[in-house]
Amino acid sequence: MSAQTLKSRAAVAFAPNEPLRLVTIDVAPPKAGEVRVRIVATGVCHTDAFTLSGSDPEGIFPTVLGHEGGGVVESIGEGVTSLQVGDHVIPLYTAECRQCKFCLSGKTNLCQAVRATQGKGLMPDGTSRFSYEGQPLFHYMGCSTFSEYTVLPEISLAKISNEAPLEQVCLLGCGVTTGIGAVLNTAKVEAGASVAIFGLGGIGLAAIIGAKMANAGRILAIDINPAKRDVALSLGATDFINPKDDDRPIQDVIVELTDGGVDYSFECVGNVQLMRAALECCHKGWGESIIIGVAGAGQEISTRPFQLVTGRVWRGSAFGGVKGRTELPSYVEKASRGEIPLETFITHNMPLEAINEAFELMHTGQSIRTVIHF
Amino acid sequence: MSAQTLKSRAAVAFAPNEPLRLVTIDVAPPKAGEVRVRIVATGVCHTDAFTLSGSDPEGIFPTVLGHEGGGVVESIGEGVTSLQVGDHVIPLYTAECRQCKFCLSGKTNLCQAVRATQGKGLMPDGTSRFSYEGQPLFHYMGCSTFSEYTVLPEISLAKISNEAPLEQVCLLGCGVTTGIGAVLNTAKVEAGASVAIFGLGGIGLAAIIGAKMANAGRILAIDINPAKRDVALSLGATDFINPKDDDRPIQDVIVELTDGGVDYSFECVGNVQLMRAALECCHKGWGESIIIGVAGAGQEISTRPFQLVTGRVWRGSAFGGVKGRTELPSYVEKASRGEIPLETFITHNMPLEAINEAFELMHTGQSIRTVIHF
Repeated sequence: MSAQTLKSRAAVAFAPNEPLRLVTIDVAPPKAGEVRVRIVATGVCHTDAFTLSGSDPEGIFPTVLGHEGGGVVESIGEGVTSLQVGDHVIPLYTAECRQCKFCLSGKTNLCQAVRATQGKGLMPDGTSRFSYEGQPLFHYMGCSTFSEYTVLPEISLAKISNEAPLEQVCLLGCGVTTGIGAVLNTAKVEAGASVAIFGLGGIGLAAIIGAKMANAGRILAIDINPAKRDVALSLGATDFINPKDDDRPIQDVIVELTDGGVDYSFECVGNVQLMRAALECCHKGWGESIIIGVAGAGQEISTRPFQLVTGRVWRGSAFGGVKGRTELPSYVEKASRGEIPLETFITHNMPLEAINEAFELMHTGQSIRTVIHF
Repeated sequence: MSAQTLKSRAAVAFAPNEPLRLVTIDVAPPKAGEVRVRIVATGVCHTDAFTLSGSDPEGIFPTVLGHEGGGVVESIGEGVTSLQVGDHVIPLYTAECRQCKFCLSGKTNLCQAVRATQGKGLMPDGTSRFSYEGQPLFHYMGCSTFSEYTVLPEISLAKISNEAPLEQVCLLGCGVTTGIGAVLNTAKVEAGASVAIFGLGGIGLAAIIGAKMANAGRILAIDINPAKRDVALSLGATDFINPKDDDRPIQDVIVELTDGGVDYSFECVGNVQLMRAALECCHKGWGESIIIGVAGAGQEISTRPFQLVTGRVWRGSAFGGVKGRTELPSYVEKASRGEIPLETFITHNMPLEAINEAFELMHTGQSIRTVIHF
């Protein structure tokens, strides 16, 4: 067990809407129930960019962003029993304590054990393990994977196979699992069902994979970027639809194409108008729409209640309804067997020093995912 | 088989927002696949009043309103096999053809077989069986129970026990079944679950009965009319809440009372603000809200998508998800065994001639249901 503070290379968000700064920070040792992890690789996700932009009402600075990582346990705090030094892990922004009302409900993955302090950028004891030049830095989503070393609660780490390539399976820490899980866990899409997926970023493409795993009969992939067509079809989409190709509302186009609407739809963008379209393209009587995207602060969804009274269902999904410690190891195994083609998502690889470029590539729609290697 | 046009006493809505007029109309014999029914009793429901007010975008005049009736088969058209003269029946505004995509889906009760013509106030062949002084009158919701004789498609009639008292079980044609079915069929409330019911008219009170049948652990009954307290508690509600007794939004009151929110909520009014409150009083992670009430034309529901992403589910229910021909006979049996206390709903009885008084009693909140006897 290491009891020392470590020097750590990190990309720090000192203020909203400024580039990250590459600095060396101090990472304190894990306290009781905590684990210090050496991050090997991390994805860069739209949620990081959303917080960095200053639009996230929960965003607080200075902070170490990043929540889609893979790493190796460097040291463990007192009382940690489920992990040992050297274990490969994926940080979880949705913990799994297995003891709270939520974990025990059997109905949700939204463990609330560390939610209050995590939302404030702190560890469960209300303090931070990060500092720069003596000043504390906030944690982010309980993960902070844009640092070579980070500290997490034991319950916020999924132990995975030591054989799995961390620079790929890190993507299972957020987007890919979110998209697949929303299809398999939240919607429980059945074989033969028709599915519409709105927005073909990392989550939307993963939802295509999930729909394919579920043997969906028809998979409509929808994006205003025509360059997404090929990757969507290669992953199993049966139709690519560009809403710009038709003057009518996209829901009308889909209802016509599918003889009444789809059985399931997924909004993977975070656009409240699109959330409405996704609901309204569902089949009367039984269609279910699942909101995955995160909307801007204060934005609201709306529709006529008649849409629901005539049998449509409106749901949401967070981290794909996946319980991280219990289920993520099997996602890693599926990826290892080639059932989740993670390589399709990784359009760019770069060192931590180039991380601001990764944000740029994401903003311009040139990347699906950039993986940062430490 | 009768092939004659019959004279029929009826309360006709000649124009929106005018009292019904008691006149003698002509009712043509049933065509192929149709059945002529002698109505023995009918309830008066808010939906009749909504259409009469002129606010219903589908409303067309002159018409014979009424959709909550009980009657006896007077004659049958060619090809009718499931009903005989003398059978006791409940008219269904949601048909059950057992052949359409909807009926065969196993997922909904929203049979579409006669929907298009029904919405236009016509029989499936595009004509009317009603006329007054030689001018046709429109049908209403496929039922038109405010007439001594009415004609329906065979698939729009539930055959029930000839022993059941039609002047009570007529209420199973709409409100009571809607409320109970929304709890048992749509929400599938489990034993021990907590339930909030907004609005204690006929549907809301029936939802209390449904929650009691499901052995719900806690049943919160909510209404701004304090006079509803006693009947709510007598039917099985564990708590009565008057939103006017607290300055806070009702959803906050309920979330506090129930340690995080209810497992299921039901909106039985048709108020879009209340639909939002009903969703937002649901428990994070799993709470489901069911919209039963019918909102005014053009009104919309809204909420922050975060409400859904954190695990709440928004649904609707029409006729309680009940397939009328298949399931209504068992509702009638339950009522006969005293498991559905229909007498609690019937606050007033009156002859057809007094029907405008029944509307008045409903508007002023003095009645739960008035049953009209022919």
